[in-house]
Amino acid sequence: MTEGSENTLKVAHQAFKNLQHGLATGEWNPMLDMLTEDFTFWFPVGPYHGLNVGKKKALAFFQYVSEVFEQTIRLTSLEHVTSNETTVVFEFRDEGMMWKEPYINRIAVFFDVREDKICGYREYFGSDSKSN
Amino acid sequence: MTEGSENTLKVAHQAFKNLQHGLATGEWNPMLDMLTEDFTFWFPVGPYHGLNVGKKKALAFFQYVSEVFEQTIRLTSLEHVTSNETTVVFEFRDEGMMWKEPYINRIAVFFDVREDKICGYREYFGSDSKSN
Repeated sequence: MTEGSENTLKVAHQAFKNLQHGLATGEWNPMLDMLTEDFTFWFPVGPYHGLNVGKKKALAFFQYVSEVFEQTIRLTSLEHVTSNETTVVFEFRDEGMMWKEPYINRIAVFFDVREDKICGYREYFGSDSKSN
Repeated sequence: MTEGSENTLKVAHQAFKNLQHGLATGEWNPMLDMLTEDFTFWFPVGPYHGLNVGKKKALAFFQYVSEVFEQTIRLTSLEHVTSNETTVVFEFRDEGMMWKEPYINRIAVFFDVREDKICGYREYFGSDSKSN
């Protein structure tokens, strides 16, 4: 593994940890602090469906996520991590309550890393949110 | 890039090509020929939702996919390829007709490679199948 890909993995693991922290607590500053100014993210469904640009949009999204799940979401299993020089993919299972209804899913999230920041995020769903 | 990861990439690219060939023509033998006997696959929704085991199940799945899409599905854009020594992830957009209704999606597919075969496949959806 090269120095570049080791750093990429380290930065993405920290971002993944900060994402879980945000989901568990509603505190999103550690995650926001890791985003580049030109950060972009893709989400599969709902009001943030498709491409979203900028940190301000990211904050609004995180606040929306906290509203939807009310800090109930927890990662139950990290299944695979695939990475190269610039991108790290985490495949995991999570569960919690969505709008107060039981929620369970398999997820793949992609972090694009630039130096010690995250410049891109893409999320994909591996389940129908009713089983995983 | 090591010799191992170069081979992994080569095998996965061939499998991805065979997958598209199957979708375009309904001919699934080139894809089936690349699967190990203990091949497993995960799919997000429908009758093959969750974990599926074995080549026989894979053939049934491919035939189901051909029935659903009737050879209308085409890849419109390959967006990202992320790979390591054993796994290759393709993120792409596709469109076609599903049960005769317009279908459009963003997809992430993971191929786990063992020697010159595919031993695992996992598919995730990046959209609601109505836009991408």
